[in-house]
Amino acid sequence: MSKYAWVTLATNDSYSLGALVVAHSLKRVHTEHQTAVLITPGVSESMKTKLRAVFNVVEEVNLLDSKDEANLALLKRPELGVTFTKLHCWRLTQFEKCVFLDADTLVLRNCDELFEREELSAAPDIGWPDCFNSGVYVYTPNMETFSSLVQYAVTHGSFDGGDQGLLNSYFSDWAHKDIQKHLPFIYNTSSVATYSYLPAFKQFGQNTKILHFIGVAKPWLQNFNSETRKVYVPSECQHLANFLQYWWDIFAEDVHSRLSPDMRTDQWVDKMIQQHEANIGHWEKAPSKVYEVQEREPFSFNTVDPTGYQLNNKLNPQDSAGDRSTSVKDSTETITVEEIKTVALTSQQQTSCPDLYEPAECQANVDGGKNGEGDGVGTFEQCT
Amino acid sequence: MSKYAWVTLATNDSYSLGALVVAHSLKRVHTEHQTAVLITPGVSESMKTKLRAVFNVVEEVNLLDSKDEANLALLKRPELGVTFTKLHCWRLTQFEKCVFLDADTLVLRNCDELFEREELSAAPDIGWPDCFNSGVYVYTPNMETFSSLVQYAVTHGSFDGGDQGLLNSYFSDWAHKDIQKHLPFIYNTSSVATYSYLPAFKQFGQNTKILHFIGVAKPWLQNFNSETRKVYVPSECQHLANFLQYWWDIFAEDVHSRLSPDMRTDQWVDKMIQQHEANIGHWEKAPSKVYEVQEREPFSFNTVDPTGYQLNNKLNPQDSAGDRSTSVKDSTETITVEEIKTVALTSQQQTSCPDLYEPAECQANVDGGKNGEGDGVGTFEQCT
Repeated sequence: MSKYAWVTLATNDSYSLGALVVAHSLKRVHTEHQTAVLITPGVSESMKTKLRAVFNVVEEVNLLDSKDEANLALLKRPELGVTFTKLHCWRLTQFEKCVFLDADTLVLRNCDELFEREELSAAPDIGWPDCFNSGVYVYTPNMETFSSLVQYAVTHGSFDGGDQGLLNSYFSDWAHKDIQKHLPFIYNTSSVATYSYLPAFKQFGQNTKILHFIGVAKPWLQNFNSETRKVYVPSECQHLANFLQYWWDIFAEDVHSRLSPDMRTDQWVDKMIQQHEANIGHWEKAPSKVYEVQEREPFSFNTVDPTGYQLNNKLNPQDSAGDRSTSVKDSTETITVEEIKTVALTSQQQTSCPDLYEPAECQANVDGGKNGEGDGVGTFEQCT
Repeated sequence: MSKYAWVTLATNDSYSLGALVVAHSLKRVHTEHQTAVLITPGVSESMKTKLRAVFNVVEEVNLLDSKDEANLALLKRPELGVTFTKLHCWRLTQFEKCVFLDADTLVLRNCDELFEREELSAAPDIGWPDCFNSGVYVYTPNMETFSSLVQYAVTHGSFDGGDQGLLNSYFSDWAHKDIQKHLPFIYNTSSVATYSYLPAFKQFGQNTKILHFIGVAKPWLQNFNSETRKVYVPSECQHLANFLQYWWDIFAEDVHSRLSPDMRTDQWVDKMIQQHEANIGHWEKAPSKVYEVQEREPFSFNTVDPTGYQLNNKLNPQDSAGDRSTSVKDSTETITVEEIKTVALTSQQQTSCPDLYEPAECQANVDGGKNGEGDGVGTFEQCT
């Protein structure tokens, strides 16, 4: 087993879906290293089981109930709770080195070379580029570092109220000391970089290895067409079309298809967006642009495919289900992850096979089973 | 005389006003080094005289008329003209080292230490932070470098159509080779950084040494009240209020007051904004933000004065004219540099003493001279 690990964080079931997409995106690029996820009590037992099936390590962290020194300190500064949660990644001392990835990132290419970097390596934040963005960073698990970070947080707080402000203050020499700790921006390409400097995105964006969906253009807020298996991308996000499509490919093929019927509770379909709104650490409340470009050119990766296969021309080679897109010709329903909860609840009354990524094998049930025992989102797995 | 120089660029008379503000901002912080300005044929003879009175070196560059190899190459790529203009700074070989400053920058504190850096040192661009922003950079004048840059431009062009794209391609190792060539962001703080990451601006912005007015919040587009000598700052730009006030202080006290009557032609009052719109090099067509902050807090430097004196509480100590704000109590006229042209032309008919930064000594003329020989903007100097 590798002594290195990719680490992410899930504070509830819906956030866990993002974490699962991250994990599967790592598997698709054949990482040689392990994966770990930190979870809080908000994650259900059912979801924990799914997480354990994908991640090598599922580490439960429960800040306020435990009695150690760090948590006692935190009790005096409860507003730092969100920040503290991320700090727990330093406690994964079974690994020699780790790379932390936010759950709204997407790994496009193998980047195991990141483990050659030392703590704390990160890419610049486009808001204030002498700060690093804490969505992706290389670090060394160490209990002393954890304790020191906790002590620093309790003493100094965080200038932005989140983990990014805290980590930038603690690792304050990042900006000026060692260029090796400046990860190239392609390891944490902000999705809004297209607006902020489109010519640079066109010049360098094709090399992106990890995309970070900051801003409001979250993949799970886009509409997904179950017939064509294409994500509908608003005109202002066309440059992100292939990234969004890839996220949905992974979600539909690797994540959602493996969820079991007993997970059809409203616990795991809390709206992911609410989690992001509550996650104040990255100062990414809303979308935006640095400059407004003169010509808002739609940018496509059609000719330079960052995912390793041509999304628009063929199905994912890993898709063992074959081409199902012609089987349900009349279906034009679209859905987002945010709507899954509604679909699940509604389907408990309608009991129809849901139109989320409708498989051909299930079509008969849809046609004739309006009053049958179809059970919404859960039938997704049953149908495939 | 110092062997080092600050260098800027003015392509016409109105742009020269910005360059003069830059030069005076350098003098106010008592730089030990020389100042130089590159000018093109668009600058009038009158303005050249004024520039020569302030800058140590006024270097005329005239790309398309000369016959040297570089310009012959350019003739095949005329679209690179704007880009080439800036490259001429490498021809100032009378200096050992230089710092280039765009004409829409403002030096707030002495930063002569920049000359300790080597070519090419610059601060990251917030649009794509693996690129540097070419509004402020340390370089070494050298004819071979100039020729090489020209050759590179003709061969490769510029990925953003301007000097920034070209320089980033040419100095492509900036991002990853030497941290010493990463200038701290406070040496080229983008004015939109307040929007992009307000907590960081509040944490670090007070240390700003050079502010770069990118976006639409150009100082000369704000309204200036001639009675109170205060600039009116829109609510969305309140965090920039002291910076904008300082720019107008310098413009009114050091630049405009020294312009002579013979400069009252419409040549030198070309709209500065048009120049910026034509300056495609920095990809700053319009304003914007990276993220929209949850609470758009107005940020003020009232308690941390970056200019060395409290703008809101007292007059600039360097203002030898004393407090004239009570002399013209009824005047509430406001004006922008962009409006100077209109004022100048109108006043040729009205012949009233203009209300641009109205001095007390002139008030009698205003009251009784409506049909007299007052001559608009030019009387500014005559009145003081």
